[in-house]
Amino acid sequence: MPVKPTPADKFSFGLWTVGWEARDQFGDASRPALDPIESVRRLAELGAWGVTFHDDDLVPFGSSDAVRDDIIKRFRAALDETGIVCEMVTTNTFSHPIFKDGAFTSNNREVRRYGLRKVIRNVDLAAELGAETFVMWGGREGSEYDGAKDVNAALDRYREGIDTVAAYIKEKGYGLKIALEPKPNEPRGDILLPTVGHALGFIAELEHGDIVGLNPEVGHEQMAGLNYTAGIAQALWAEKLFHIDLNGQRSIKYDQDLVFGHGDLLSAFFTVDLIENGFPGGGPRYDGPRHFDYKPSRTEDVDGVWVSAAANMSTYLLLKERALAYRADPEVQAALEASKVLELSKPTLGEGESLADLLATPAAFEELDVDAVAAEGYAFVHLNQLAVEHALGGR
Amino acid sequence: MPVKPTPADKFSFGLWTVGWEARDQFGDASRPALDPIESVRRLAELGAWGVTFHDDDLVPFGSSDAVRDDIIKRFRAALDETGIVCEMVTTNTFSHPIFKDGAFTSNNREVRRYGLRKVIRNVDLAAELGAETFVMWGGREGSEYDGAKDVNAALDRYREGIDTVAAYIKEKGYGLKIALEPKPNEPRGDILLPTVGHALGFIAELEHGDIVGLNPEVGHEQMAGLNYTAGIAQALWAEKLFHIDLNGQRSIKYDQDLVFGHGDLLSAFFTVDLIENGFPGGGPRYDGPRHFDYKPSRTEDVDGVWVSAAANMSTYLLLKERALAYRADPEVQAALEASKVLELSKPTLGEGESLADLLATPAAFEELDVDAVAAEGYAFVHLNQLAVEHALGGR
Amino acid sequence: MPVKPTPADKFSFGLWTVGWEARDQFGDASRPALDPIESVRRLAELGAWGVTFHDDDLVPFGSSDAVRDDIIKRFRAALDETGIVCEMVTTNTFSHPIFKDGAFTSNNREVRRYGLRKVIRNVDLAAELGAETFVMWGGREGSEYDGAKDVNAALDRYREGIDTVAAYIKEKGYGLKIALEPKPNEPRGDILLPTVGHALGFIAELEHGDIVGLNPEVGHEQMAGLNYTAGIAQALWAEKLFHIDLNGQRSIKYDQDLVFGHGDLLSAFFTVDLIENGFPGGGPRYDGPRHFDYKPSRTEDVDGVWVSAAANMSTYLLLKERALAYRADPEVQAALEASKVLELSKPTLGEGESLADLLATPAAFEELDVDAVAAEGYAFVHLNQLAVEHALGGR
Amino acid sequence: MPVKPTPADKFSFGLWTVGWEARDQFGDASRPALDPIESVRRLAELGAWGVTFHDDDLVPFGSSDAVRDDIIKRFRAALDETGIVCEMVTTNTFSHPIFKDGAFTSNNREVRRYGLRKVIRNVDLAAELGAETFVMWGGREGSEYDGAKDVNAALDRYREGIDTVAAYIKEKGYGLKIALEPKPNEPRGDILLPTVGHALGFIAELEHGDIVGLNPEVGHEQMAGLNYTAGIAQALWAEKLFHIDLNGQRSIKYDQDLVFGHGDLLSAFFTVDLIENGFPGGGPRYDGPRHFDYKPSRTEDVDGVWVSAAANMSTYLLLKERALAYRADPEVQAALEASKVLELSKPTLGEGESLADLLATPAAFEELDVDAVAAEGYAFVHLNQLAVEHALGGR
Repeated sequence: MPVKPTPADKFSFGLWTVGWEARDQFGDASRPALDPIESVRRLAELGAWGVTFHDDDLVPFGSSDAVRDDIIKRFRAALDETGIVCEMVTTNTFSHPIFKDGAFTSNNREVRRYGLRKVIRNVDLAAELGAETFVMWGGREGSEYDGAKDVNAALDRYREGIDTVAAYIKEKGYGLKIALEPKPNEPRGDILLPTVGHALGFIAELEHGDIVGLNPEVGHEQMAGLNYTAGIAQALWAEKLFHIDLNGQRSIKYDQDLVFGHGDLLSAFFTVDLIENGFPGGGPRYDGPRHFDYKPSRTEDVDGVWVSAAANMSTYLLLKERALAYRADPEVQAALEASKVLELSKPTLGEGESLADLLATPAAFEELDVDAVAAEGYAFVHLNQLAVEHALGGR
Repeated sequence: MPVKPTPADKFSFGLWTVGWEARDQFGDASRPALDPIESVRRLAELGAWGVTFHDDDLVPFGSSDAVRDDIIKRFRAALDETGIVCEMVTTNTFSHPIFKDGAFTSNNREVRRYGLRKVIRNVDLAAELGAETFVMWGGREGSEYDGAKDVNAALDRYREGIDTVAAYIKEKGYGLKIALEPKPNEPRGDILLPTVGHALGFIAELEHGDIVGLNPEVGHEQMAGLNYTAGIAQALWAEKLFHIDLNGQRSIKYDQDLVFGHGDLLSAFFTVDLIENGFPGGGPRYDGPRHFDYKPSRTEDVDGVWVSAAANMSTYLLLKERALAYRADPEVQAALEASKVLELSKPTLGEGESLADLLATPAAFEELDVDAVAAEGYAFVHLNQLAVEHALGGR
Repeated sequence: MPVKPTPADKFSFGLWTVGWEARDQFGDASRPALDPIESVRRLAELGAWGVTFHDDDLVPFGSSDAVRDDIIKRFRAALDETGIVCEMVTTNTFSHPIFKDGAFTSNNREVRRYGLRKVIRNVDLAAELGAETFVMWGGREGSEYDGAKDVNAALDRYREGIDTVAAYIKEKGYGLKIALEPKPNEPRGDILLPTVGHALGFIAELEHGDIVGLNPEVGHEQMAGLNYTAGIAQALWAEKLFHIDLNGQRSIKYDQDLVFGHGDLLSAFFTVDLIENGFPGGGPRYDGPRHFDYKPSRTEDVDGVWVSAAANMSTYLLLKERALAYRADPEVQAALEASKVLELSKPTLGEGESLADLLATPAAFEELDVDAVAAEGYAFVHLNQLAVEHALGGR
Repeated sequence: MPVKPTPADKFSFGLWTVGWEARDQFGDASRPALDPIESVRRLAELGAWGVTFHDDDLVPFGSSDAVRDDIIKRFRAALDETGIVCEMVTTNTFSHPIFKDGAFTSNNREVRRYGLRKVIRNVDLAAELGAETFVMWGGREGSEYDGAKDVNAALDRYREGIDTVAAYIKEKGYGLKIALEPKPNEPRGDILLPTVGHALGFIAELEHGDIVGLNPEVGHEQMAGLNYTAGIAQALWAEKLFHIDLNGQRSIKYDQDLVFGHGDLLSAFFTVDLIENGFPGGGPRYDGPRHFDYKPSRTEDVDGVWVSAAANMSTYLLLKERALAYRADPEVQAALEASKVLELSKPTLGEGESLADLLATPAAFEELDVDAVAAEGYAFVHLNQLAVEHALGGR
């Protein structure tokens, strides 16, 4: 039976996840709106540790300042009451039609200025609520038509926007870090910064890139057929994995936002293995929130919403058990050895060896028995079979 | 009728493209080997300007030094005779089974050292032949199984390898630049540096990243469902577009390497538009070789090989004509204006305007007529329809 | 410049296409609702010949009979006034949350019965309005989870539903034909009858399959990476191509519903070539409506909607010109000959030849010069290059 | 620990799977050829029940009759000695360049006739060896270019070919059934009969379709993003699931042929669940061989080959245990009930109820409380979570 989560597990949920009314591209809402306060309470009961939200999830777009203040006050009270942490805040720059061509990269400068204002206002709120991470998903930053967007100018504006926000955070002394969330497409035909990689490349060009990192989402990378675990591994390597969005996706198609583990289960196993156990050879670790960004299927009623929220955590904890057992298994350790997985941590040039030395080493090239080396097997299938059997609880 | 190419068009071809014997995953060779000398001559006759090659395309793997020297001598003579430029050289670190787990990131350190030696030897050859670009496609750097590769260690080794090569180039005073070629998968299940973005992010972590850039291939990005034109646009923005590989791919599937334009034709139109016309609002330009990395289909005989080589150039030139007419058309210019494409070059903050100023501007936020701005159309479909009609020669 | 369409071109549009308010998965409506009467008039002005609709596009879900009758009356008047034909009618069994698990295959029998009633009511309306085709897109018939749907039972229920509707049509003596519309996914994770092929296989199991065929949509097949032209070709071969949905899609991702030709342009060329010119060797032809099922991008205002509607027709007519010229070109005819395209129409066994005869023909096997036959080239790249150049208006 | 397989499990392997020399699109062979006799013995030792092969796997292409007879004799002896069953035979009509444009649908009639002869010869061998199934994978039947293949003529020729083979089987009184194997692409750009559905639609047009069914492969359907379990479910529903090819694939990309379960693990769980437990509501069952069509990764040596063969069986047996426990769990049974999964087996019209009766039932439509029905949840996420937890051995 699944283990019950506790706040020590650092599980968090977006208000928009459980609160999704299940309106989709082809259908009307199938569930009523949830009161965010109610969501905080229910998540606390389920064992969650944190919540996150878009400004508009909490305070309806266009609310007066008085209404806004009141909602925020009630929300803080619910946090205090439950002990739930508001670990991350993000801005909705994609639902209102004013953002139909994007926010920071809209062709319309008025929209860009409006979007920047909306984001800055939300940065203040994030800081006020003690959030540590400020996620930015530029879901509408992109285009359907190559001629419609000057990508060079768009990236200039994107950089201007992010650097402006980052400079503001520093100036205010807020403890926030910005985490960009890549996505290849949907709702736009092609979105700027489509993958973990593109966002890393972009961050390298920022003035204030030191406080800008990533919030990679399982499904978003898989929508491009990319390996999520390898993606967050590169982000870790670059010391830019600031936050994660866990969910499930089945192959390359529309953004499914399934429960974590309800998509590519073996990939989920390796994701948990990396998060909980780190790289086999050591190196940077992720110790941030285990944040779920999923949607309870449109077929579910409100009870089903809470069941689905719990399912994310149960699956994670079960996979964690499996991953811990996997790494602890002496047979796995022997298999890692046989596959030379740890040998990769050893530099290619020896300590004190220069390239010139290597060039002068006939054993490395001229005299190497190439065919013999080529004939050695890596036994990767055996290693992976051990992983599969551990994942299935079969060892 | 298609225009005949000339060397001024800077078209170049890999020896491995026309020389492909058409052995594929499920079938034996359908064509005889071509003599590289013959390929150089035929390409010259067709109007190409340059050739490129993997070491093993020119000099069979395992050849003695004497044989190697002789082949290189004959090759240089053919270049001299035809005026064909050897603009780029690359290393085969993927065909021989010694590289079955990669070269710079193989779990086996002996292989890594051997791979580095093979690459360095080829750098010398590239420099000797006057090449300007040294492409590195790490086709076997990756894995099928997440447990089989410590990605953190792999990226450390990849960095070590590339930095070592780059340092060597600098030390020798060679005029070479390194261009990494991303690919998401095939022949490995997941390849490291799977997209333009991941490679940009990687380069940012190099010590000698100043001489390391990209060689993006049309089909490779499209195998991840990504927009090639947007990809090279980000590379240009980061000033890292050192070389390009033009070919054709039809949707997300195995690597097809079709003739340029025989895949996504409208995307090819916009790629040529970007290369020939630059960004609408100005900015970095690509002026390197128009290099084709394609495979003549296995159904073709040797005559068909040359027809297919010519087809790449014809399509490019035809698309160039279309792209020039597109930009020159006053109706297109008006449409770009109507879609505010050029407005995106204007900074979001005004000259001398600080964020504080913007925050103190009620017209930008508090007093903005959000619904009115939201209601304005961008007329992107009209603009794209003009592009389609220009592409089709219908205007 | 594009040719102006006329009713002789048989272009038709769904009311839901131009009428889309641009509410998507991540955003609110960006355009006001359009009055269907207005849409009919505008489409007539643009040169369209027909309209189509879902019941709920015309008559809002839940309208009283009186309101319904009045709306239908006004709609008929607009048809009479403009000469626009109502060529196809379809039923919305996907937007209302009652259909969240499907209609004919919902696990809930009450929903199945309700869905059947809704469809039958709409069949009467279709007949009343003189439609020839009754499209059925089972967008919610499917599941996200393999355990949630007994596919055998679901196909039994699907068959029961379709056969019941078809029997009703026959019994009533309506001139309607049913056209099933396949789609692989979205809004469900996996939809039943995901491709042209699955629907053909399903129809073969029906009792009243004689009046049931297909309405394949460009984007739906391409969402599975399948070749649309090949798909409708198999439907034609099976004499089941009853209707078509033309639009644009860029690779495997969410359902884009772009303007026809704004997706895979070369594929669109060959689709038009097949529709207008038929198979090279003759055979079944499609002469039904050229129906567009697309969405004006969310970035467009109402003017942009009409521009986008016109763009579908312009592109089609331009591609038609190109396709006619392609087939008429003597160089293309020679290339088809060289590629033996027409030889495929010749049976493998000769007239009067039995398999036993073939088995007794050493020239066909034992004595065949296999290597010589294998060496012959098919010159397919040349043929395709001619197609590309014709598509681009370059010949 | 994994259970040891026995012949009662009916596991079978293609000689080409363990025998793959690991030559791929980008690399040379990494393993030596295996003697088929050796493969039979090793598979027997591992607990397999059967073997299968392409003619050329056993008898090299172009062997003399004497050599062929001798090889077959030795092979039969190995079968007798080990008790291994030759359950299926298939024909290689894709490796030799003579088939570069296909066999039954090559544009070249000489090739079609040659291909037919090769297949018929192999039918005799299949019958002689007591095989029950004759698989036909038309891997080269297709094209890269829409203009290069008259699909109507191609399907005519495909039908002619299959019907000729089927008629021959009947005439000879062989107990063989033909199983077509669909695949969307690779090695051709688009393959005819790309999915389970297209093949079902095709079979419906055959004269001798009664002995023609399907051999669906996991990876082939997943290469089109389709749900394999749903695919074989439709084949079962149509009583056409004659054989299966189990393996692993990770998302939409080149054909990976991984070990079963090393791809989409949750999908593999449901595939085994369907094979072992049947549909929840009963219906057609598959009781044929559990056949693996996979490739030991190129990184493995010969020992790794046998480890990988065993891994297929271990994973299958482990998933079988999980699937049996899943169905037996009372909580799962309750969840199936709550999700109304079994209600779908109940006809939509009641026993003796006509459509006219339904139309006259206001409770079904006019008086139905649509909103109340719409509000009911299906609890699918809970059901799926139980499946995930069972798959992971967590219940």
